[in-house]
Amino acid sequence: MVKKLTAEFMGTFLLVFLGTGAVVLAKGDALTIALGFGLAITISAYAFGGISGGHFNPAVTTAMLINKRIAGSDALGYIIAQFAGATVASAIAKWFIGAAGMSTANLAQTDFPKLSAGSAFAVEAVVTFLFLMVILSVTSSKYGNSQFAGLAIGVSLALLIMFALNLTGGSLNPARSFGPAIFAGGSALSHLWVYILAPEVGAIVAAFAAKYLLGSEE
Amino acid sequence: MVKKLTAEFMGTFLLVFLGTGAVVLAKGDALTIALGFGLAITISAYAFGGISGGHFNPAVTTAMLINKRIAGSDALGYIIAQFAGATVASAIAKWFIGAAGMSTANLAQTDFPKLSAGSAFAVEAVVTFLFLMVILSVTSSKYGNSQFAGLAIGVSLALLIMFALNLTGGSLNPARSFGPAIFAGGSALSHLWVYILAPEVGAIVAAFAAKYLLGSEE
Amino acid sequence: MVKKLTAEFMGTFLLVFLGTGAVVLAKGDALTIALGFGLAITISAYAFGGISGGHFNPAVTTAMLINKRIAGSDALGYIIAQFAGATVASAIAKWFIGAAGMSTANLAQTDFPKLSAGSAFAVEAVVTFLFLMVILSVTSSKYGNSQFAGLAIGVSLALLIMFALNLTGGSLNPARSFGPAIFAGGSALSHLWVYILAPEVGAIVAAFAAKYLLGSEE
Amino acid sequence: MVKKLTAEFMGTFLLVFLGTGAVVLAKGDALTIALGFGLAITISAYAFGGISGGHFNPAVTTAMLINKRIAGSDALGYIIAQFAGATVASAIAKWFIGAAGMSTANLAQTDFPKLSAGSAFAVEAVVTFLFLMVILSVTSSKYGNSQFAGLAIGVSLALLIMFALNLTGGSLNPARSFGPAIFAGGSALSHLWVYILAPEVGAIVAAFAAKYLLGSEE
Repeated sequence: MVKKLTAEFMGTFLLVFLGTGAVVLAKGDALTIALGFGLAITISAYAFGGISGGHFNPAVTTAMLINKRIAGSDALGYIIAQFAGATVASAIAKWFIGAAGMSTANLAQTDFPKLSAGSAFAVEAVVTFLFLMVILSVTSSKYGNSQFAGLAIGVSLALLIMFALNLTGGSLNPARSFGPAIFAGGSALSHLWVYILAPEVGAIVAAFAAKYLLGSEE
Repeated sequence: MVKKLTAEFMGTFLLVFLGTGAVVLAKGDALTIALGFGLAITISAYAFGGISGGHFNPAVTTAMLINKRIAGSDALGYIIAQFAGATVASAIAKWFIGAAGMSTANLAQTDFPKLSAGSAFAVEAVVTFLFLMVILSVTSSKYGNSQFAGLAIGVSLALLIMFALNLTGGSLNPARSFGPAIFAGGSALSHLWVYILAPEVGAIVAAFAAKYLLGSEE
Repeated sequence: MVKKLTAEFMGTFLLVFLGTGAVVLAKGDALTIALGFGLAITISAYAFGGISGGHFNPAVTTAMLINKRIAGSDALGYIIAQFAGATVASAIAKWFIGAAGMSTANLAQTDFPKLSAGSAFAVEAVVTFLFLMVILSVTSSKYGNSQFAGLAIGVSLALLIMFALNLTGGSLNPARSFGPAIFAGGSALSHLWVYILAPEVGAIVAAFAAKYLLGSEE
Repeated sequence: MVKKLTAEFMGTFLLVFLGTGAVVLAKGDALTIALGFGLAITISAYAFGGISGGHFNPAVTTAMLINKRIAGSDALGYIIAQFAGATVASAIAKWFIGAAGMSTANLAQTDFPKLSAGSAFAVEAVVTFLFLMVILSVTSSKYGNSQFAGLAIGVSLALLIMFALNLTGGSLNPARSFGPAIFAGGSALSHLWVYILAPEVGAIVAAFAAKYLLGSEE
């Protein structure tokens, strides 16, 4: 179990660490940022997915719990490891950004300056719903493709982030928003509840929709 | 059958939804837009192709019908599901674009301001012919590669859209053009017949050419 | 045999057609152009490689002939089909570019305005040598990976074109340079001999080096 | 053994050669540069990994030695071949850059103008640690995926370079920094010790961490 938690920590760490690189350090455009986060999930899935199943996202763990692909006793540990990985990644990224004399005001935190909280909630819930539909289908025992699952999931995340980037920053992941927000503070922290709750709502709806579309995994 | 139609709906939804993200929300360059549409087909193929066969395009369904890879009784339902998926995706995208205070004049609709209708028809017919030649070959029982089919098809779409982007917008798909056009109106709607008919012509020619090149699938 | 020649025609057609799209129609940057040509080979390899072996390049056919992976009687037909595919692709691309009111002076032809002919010859020979080393290794019966060969070959071409783009345009393929040059004329045509001979020299050296490194394929 | 050393030479050559193309010749942005280096490792892994195991990096060889995946008697030869491949690649790249009349002051060498040597050391050690964690996991007999290993490793390198590019240039590889530095001289040469030692430290820590996380490979 400690190995599984280490794998979840490492994967979520890479997501936030490499996303920070794409957003802040490389000052990337939408494609670069989207690929930074998306392909981070792809490599984490191929590297650490064999150990833990490769969630790296509390919303994914929630959906997997509903569809009985993870035991309830494991799920809490997974989620704690994910928040820890994202937080440590943000701390190290902040240190390196400061060491280069760059402003640490931007830590790749998510926010929605142009939207109301309700619209931002809807965006995050919808894109996370779509993300989970892809994940649950491509990893299903009936219709899945285990070889290409990591690639399809990472590319899905990239494209969904590209959609949401100029709306909400495109989180789809409570841990990914939590890590940078606690160091950045401000509205990223006061708006954090949207990024905690909306992806969970999207994931829960997807979990039930997938039960119908893909059949039971039990 | 309802599951198959849901899969076709989901895949076509993702194509139009993520394409809108790449064109309108991320204000992408040609590579970003091409990858937005192309990789959307890749992830839909890996996620939902196992359920429905992964057409997500009325022109593809037409070619599959000619080559007897889908029953005539199923084809109509597939095409209706594809148009429905594209329309709902455009509606939701329009809502999110408006919620961000952005102009909803651009909904990633396709048009040909620099070409005559005849030239636009030729461009869409030729690129869809090439797209179907790749699809029919890479999914054929004799020469295909089922593992890599979804990747090859998505990359093909990306490159063919890159070719056609500044000519016709690069649709290759009647449903993909229908969805945004009915919300955008104007010349996108009055020119819609080109995007309905030309891909079908290209697909029909490809279906017969593939019979010769690849042999019968019966 | 006619099917094999059709496959070689189609693959080389796609390379030149989609490359023209990336260079001229999408006005792409180096990454876009490199991926336009490189991924065109990837999709052609997965779609048509099963029929013909997927050369799409006279220099590749030459190396395969030396390493006895293709019969001498077939090689000439392959090369003619490749030149024909590239020429037809350039003709259609020129028609579409003109129909859009764009200048047809740029047809994605290759040239070397900043280099001497000797340096250009060296660049094309070296990058084609490296390209063939990757191709011959990744398709070898002993060390190859048939599933990933098409992807590795396309990505190799993309990166080698990125290296050579601002030196010689990055052809690595006599047919790819021949097609656009005969329509563009000028120095692209008078310099064409470099793009015919240099890739062949690189390919011949690679064929013998591969015999040593990879062992005989007989 | 000579074939193995040739394979290591070729792979490291391609890394430095194609990286120079992305940085200097194509004047690429962060995504282009990252993909230039990263995908070079991917193609080298699929082409030459079957012969030598595909290290192409002294830090990787060190970690493999600690985890007993390579014999001590082979490791020294591997490292010499890697330094030789990087050096020859830089020499040829410098020749081509000069032939095009471009300044040879930039040979894609690595340096850290904005950081202290201590911070640069920390950055290179951390990103190489993460790189090796991915490599050791994705190639492990227990959790690895041999088909996708080359792709996952290349994408990892791309994203980690994207993180480190504006900090240290993102080397993660003593040979990759050595080759350009001896031709470029200046601070790239006087700072070379950081790029020799830091990746080795990161790799050694990763080798021991992987023993715990992945189990013994013996």
